[in-house]
Amino acid sequence: MIFHTFTEQNLRQFTERVFLKMGCPAADAQLAADVLLKSDLRGIDSHGVARLSGYVRLWEKERINATPNVRVVHETPTTATVDGDAGLGLVVAPFAMKVAIEKAKVYGSGWVSVKNSNHFGIAGYHALMAVEQDMIGVSMTNASPLVAPTYANERLLGTNPMCYAFPAGKYPPVVVDMATAAAANGKLEIAQRANLPIPEGWVQDKDGNTSTNPHQLKDGGSLLPLGSDKDHGSHKGYGLSATVDILSAVLSGANYGPWVPPFVAFLEPSANPVGQGIGHFFGAMRIDGFRPAADFKDHLDNWIERFQSAKTIKEGQKVVIPGEPEYAFEQERRVQGIPIIDVVVNDLNELAEKLGIEGLA
Amino acid sequence: MIFHTFTEQNLRQFTERVFLKMGCPAADAQLAADVLLKSDLRGIDSHGVARLSGYVRLWEKERINATPNVRVVHETPTTATVDGDAGLGLVVAPFAMKVAIEKAKVYGSGWVSVKNSNHFGIAGYHALMAVEQDMIGVSMTNASPLVAPTYANERLLGTNPMCYAFPAGKYPPVVVDMATAAAANGKLEIAQRANLPIPEGWVQDKDGNTSTNPHQLKDGGSLLPLGSDKDHGSHKGYGLSATVDILSAVLSGANYGPWVPPFVAFLEPSANPVGQGIGHFFGAMRIDGFRPAADFKDHLDNWIERFQSAKTIKEGQKVVIPGEPEYAFEQERRVQGIPIIDVVVNDLNELAEKLGIEGLA
Repeated sequence: MIFHTFTEQNLRQFTERVFLKMGCPAADAQLAADVLLKSDLRGIDSHGVARLSGYVRLWEKERINATPNVRVVHETPTTATVDGDAGLGLVVAPFAMKVAIEKAKVYGSGWVSVKNSNHFGIAGYHALMAVEQDMIGVSMTNASPLVAPTYANERLLGTNPMCYAFPAGKYPPVVVDMATAAAANGKLEIAQRANLPIPEGWVQDKDGNTSTNPHQLKDGGSLLPLGSDKDHGSHKGYGLSATVDILSAVLSGANYGPWVPPFVAFLEPSANPVGQGIGHFFGAMRIDGFRPAADFKDHLDNWIERFQSAKTIKEGQKVVIPGEPEYAFEQERRVQGIPIIDVVVNDLNELAEKLGIEGLA
Repeated sequence: MIFHTFTEQNLRQFTERVFLKMGCPAADAQLAADVLLKSDLRGIDSHGVARLSGYVRLWEKERINATPNVRVVHETPTTATVDGDAGLGLVVAPFAMKVAIEKAKVYGSGWVSVKNSNHFGIAGYHALMAVEQDMIGVSMTNASPLVAPTYANERLLGTNPMCYAFPAGKYPPVVVDMATAAAANGKLEIAQRANLPIPEGWVQDKDGNTSTNPHQLKDGGSLLPLGSDKDHGSHKGYGLSATVDILSAVLSGANYGPWVPPFVAFLEPSANPVGQGIGHFFGAMRIDGFRPAADFKDHLDNWIERFQSAKTIKEGQKVVIPGEPEYAFEQERRVQGIPIIDVVVNDLNELAEKLGIEGLA
């Protein structure tokens, strides 16, 4: 595999050019690029600029609206439903999180469910918006159906991620940002490209048998929920995924379960949708709504130090604090640049040519 | 194994007698009994009257205060911290959930973190209090350290359950109520009593190797997080457990991580606590803060029907809706009575004798 390294600035400008060419207003293009860049900076390569072509294809099919009228359609002092008007999730999600944060500033907490949206990038971006305000951030989304609930032999749920982010004192924020499937689809794609076997418990084949063949997912199989099988708690992973689906879509009026529109343009959305677009859910809670923020941060620092110094199974190993590896990536890549795999570079340059914009240097 | 079956009323009266004898005010004794009975009714036998002797032993050691001054010590319109004054979690938790519900009635949502509490029974009881008000209920608690985070060879987290409950229309509420460990301690105790091997991935031994011997937990081993190992996402189970710990204790000022006081009276709490007692976290959100409750319930009914009718791997199998089995138990046991295993019956009758109260018939 060959990687090309780009500066953050270079990739950011390219990404903005793409969104501008789609017709996004300048502020939206800037925001959407910021969300994608954050993913590449944090080492989550599957959710960054690698997805740009996919967004463009959905826009070409008129499934993404470049100039949406994103708005609150229902609210109380601390809750709201946002209609994303089929906009980029990369724009709709920060809008909704801002609504949650503004409510939290006044009333202590804010909770927003979103309908009629699209793929929102990494959940962590949105949750971290709250952390910057000394709040706890919550961010979830449903996603195209790929996961079979326990006992099922069909795909009824997405990898539906859940994210909780907490501000610390001297340490980076604690960010729990996780797909509720045993393995995210990105991990499977790596094994598919390399044609390597995967651990049992990630996928089942078309007959519902666990399989180590990564290609089974594309051959009628399904991803498995976190826990993998009933003995190991797959009903819990299924329960978490269901929770994300209900908070994101049943609550807002988006599509849920098997009706969630596919992220890829070559698959058509359901002809009989049960709602509008895909759904998200966001929350923000002021730390000082519970105790002084400095006390919370002191104790979270102490929590982090205790876990970091835990006795480990192997010498030299360390317990990883959630969000710590992504933070380390971000520090490194801001300075040293962002490596992009050559197939993605080629794809982006073809995209540039098609759109008639300047490619990646 | 021999079971004796008791009517709900019979067990409830016995349980109230025990709490009254401990010195609990009548309303508290009634409430605490209601929480325990709900567990036995819902088929979660490990968290019901089987724990009564344990509560009494903690009270004898003055670690449970039978006449606590439970109160809000910090708040905003939609957030609060409650000090449980070392009371029974069975009393403190419903108090805190009521605070969350009252805030939600006025402002749309309410969130309460609790310190200085004790074991609160099943998480589902408290979350279901919100469901009765057409709200979404959230309930979490930290717990005595038994679980090793990914890579660790020590117990730093409890089985820290997370619960989300949603009101449906024609169906019972959807209740996701789950320990964030691969298997709850109760399942392990069953295997220990029967001297049967357990699946790999539930526990590791004192050297950090996965083990099928259920006794390893008592021999320096640890429970494993949901996901079991790194390949299958144990870092996600660890992240969820960390989330529960931070929301319940770092946010409220309770003990967290390895400092959480043990639930058993024969183990002493840390001599250098980092907070007070154990911690909980509760939330309530009005459904009609997002969309009309009737619309939500119609769609949740549709969600339930779609999942119940899913294609399954084996014929005759069905996808289980979270909370459905517990609801079925409750309907059955309200009519046919509650079976209690003989060792528990004997334990309860010895307790009655010690306390000088009427035993179980």
